[in-house]
This record gives sequence, C-alpha cells and structure tokens, in this order.
Amino acid sequence: MPPTAAPLTAERILEATEDVLRRHGPAKATVVDVARELGVSHGSVYRHFRTKAALREAVIKRWLGRTTETLAGVVEGTGPAPEKLRGWLAALFEAKRHKAGDDPQLFATYSVLVGETSDQVDQHIAILVGQLAVILEEGVRAGEFAPCDIAGRARAVLDATGRFHDPYYAGQWSRPGIDQDFTEVCDLVLRGLRP
Amino acid sequence: MPPTAAPLTAERILEATEDVLRRHGPAKATVVDVARELGVSHGSVYRHFRTKAALREAVIKRWLGRTTETLAGVVEGTGPAPEKLRGWLAALFEAKRHKAGDDPQLFATYSVLVGETSDQVDQHIAILVGQLAVILEEGVRAGEFAPCDIAGRARAVLDATGRFHDPYYAGQWSRPGIDQDFTEVCDLVLRGLRP
Repeated sequence: MPPTAAPLTAERILEATEDVLRRHGPAKATVVDVARELGVSHGSVYRHFRTKAALREAVIKRWLGRTTETLAGVVEGTGPAPEKLRGWLAALFEAKRHKAGDDPQLFATYSVLVGETSDQVDQHIAILVGQLAVILEEGVRAGEFAPCDIAGRARAVLDATGRFHDPYYAGQWSRPGIDQDFTEVCDLVLRGLRP
Repeated sequence: MPPTAAPLTAERILEATEDVLRRHGPAKATVVDVARELGVSHGSVYRHFRTKAALREAVIKRWLGRTTETLAGVVEGTGPAPEKLRGWLAALFEAKRHKAGDDPQLFATYSVLVGETSDQVDQHIAILVGQLAVILEEGVRAGEFAPCDIAGRARAVLDATGRFHDPYYAGQWSRPGIDQDFTEVCDLVLRGLRP
C-alpha cells in the first residue's frame, strides 16, 4: 500500500493488521509486516502498539467486540425476556456462523490467535455472561423466568448453547439439521428458565 | 514382550495396540508395531485385522465402548427418570474426566484418532443419544418429563452438556468451579424437561 496523507490512527493500524492476518495467517502480522502494509515506518506503528503482543491483543479485542456490540443491541431492545433471550442466542450463532462462513481463512486465523490468549477468551465469555445476566434479571423481575442465581444460570445458558457459538464447532455450522438442533437446544433452555 | 503360548485373540491384539498407543502416540501403532509388541509375526495380526485402519477402528470402538457400557448400566437401573438422567450425565462426565485425568497421554492420543474417523464419533454419539432417548421415554411415560420429540430432545440434552463430555474441553475438567458449572447446566436441563 502506498504511503497516504491520512493520519495514522490505531483503527487504521488494526484494519491493516486484519488484512495481513487474512492474507498470511497468524504467523505473520508483526509490527514490521503491518508497517509495510501501511507504507509507514515501524516506529510510527510502535507509537500506537508497543509490542506484537499488544497489537494482537487489540486486533482480537476488536474482532470479538464486533460480536458483543451486535448482541448489546439485542440486550437493549424491548419485549419479553424469553423472546429477547432467543433472539440473543440466534444473533450470537448467526454472528459466529457469518464470520466463519464469509471469511473462513480469517476466522481460522482468529481462532488460533484467540486460543493463544486465554485472557481474551475469559474476558469475552465474561461479557457474554454479563449480557445474559441482564436478560435473565429482566425475566425474573417480570415473572417470566424462575428466580435463580443469575450469574450461575447465565453461565449455564452459555455453556448449554456452546455447540452454536464455540469456534471449535464451526465445521458443524453448515451441516443440514444444525438449525433444527439449535432450535431444540433453545427450546430446552427456555423451558428450563420457566418459573 | 516375549512370545507367549496364550492364543492370539483379537482382544489381546487390541490390548497390545493400546499399550503401543500409550507409549508412542497416534503416529505409531501399525500392524507391524503391534506384532512386535506381541512377539508374533505380523501375518498373525493380519488374520484378525486386515489393515491398519481396521485395527484402529477396533481399538477406538473398544475405547469408546468402555464408556457406553458403563452408561448402559445406568440406563438399565431403576428409579425416577429425572434422577436416572442426572446420574447418567454425571457418569458420562466422570468416565471422560477419569480417562483424561488418569492417562492424559492415552486420552490425547485417542482424541486425535477419534477426530480422524468421524464415522466412529457419529456412531458413538448415536449410541449416547439412544441411551438418553430410553431415559426420556421412561420419564415421559411416567409423567415426569413433558411429552416431546424424543430423538430431538435427547440430542439437545447431549448438545447442552457438551462442555462436560466433549474431549475438546478436557483441559477445563480440572478447573475449580467446573463441578458447580456442571450442576448448573444439569439443573437447567432437568428443569427444561419438566412437564
């Protein structure tokens, strides 16, 4: 990419990093590779990200953040908690499946990167469990869900639907019958939340 | 191992294969390796298993069969279906965790082998779903579980508890809090089966 007059923002660096990851896989995407991609000195990238680890953490956070932002929109929506929960689970499955199906190379690359930094996975899971907890609380308050240990049950809902969001299962997401399997698990979970 | 006068049964060959797998990992365990282990000609092993693939299939089937046999005992037991289901899920988690914890090298080796032969995985899952279906049917007949599409719901129960039996998650089975997580998911599933 030729040098450009646009200011070198963290966002531009992260976009370029994603391009490098898409084309070259997880082994590449060092600060030097990204600087070359942007046509800038690696010193100017270092001013934003001091190490390769910091750059990778930021790009993973951005990647996972795209999913949690979409889901936050569902949490903030209106309507009965059971419908909201079903919508949230469907949006999570859809977001992951979309990422895996549209750009399998980038998805595989991110899955490797994410697997290397368990902190990021733990933080991502904590955000998802937190969003579920908000929906569960709404439902319990409205008498739509049974009273429960909210945090524990939110984690249980995430665990119980793992086949439809854990990247490990991405190979199964285009199988015939997977949508039926998803509906069956959602039905079981929703039934389990009833008072 | 020195030659022995004991007759060369399929079972003895499979035991020796497992020893070879334990010590050398999945790359080894060819017919020749196993014959050497037994101190017999590879011709005599070939009389039982015609190819390396046939030998591997048989040893995987035996390995997975140990779990399903234990679980079949739970299915055949007496008592209310909800308790039986909880016992079955606990026995499955325990069997897998036991295998993973006692002999991590062999467990990792088998996980690789099993991953290579998706037919065996599909058959194993079908057996587990079949056992769950028997328990669900009992519960529906006794009015303990809500009427449902038995096969679909049995699969949903297996899917919903995947974190506690899919070998992919073996690294999490010794985490503090995993038993609590397991109980939370079981509670949610059992609640979901109620009429």
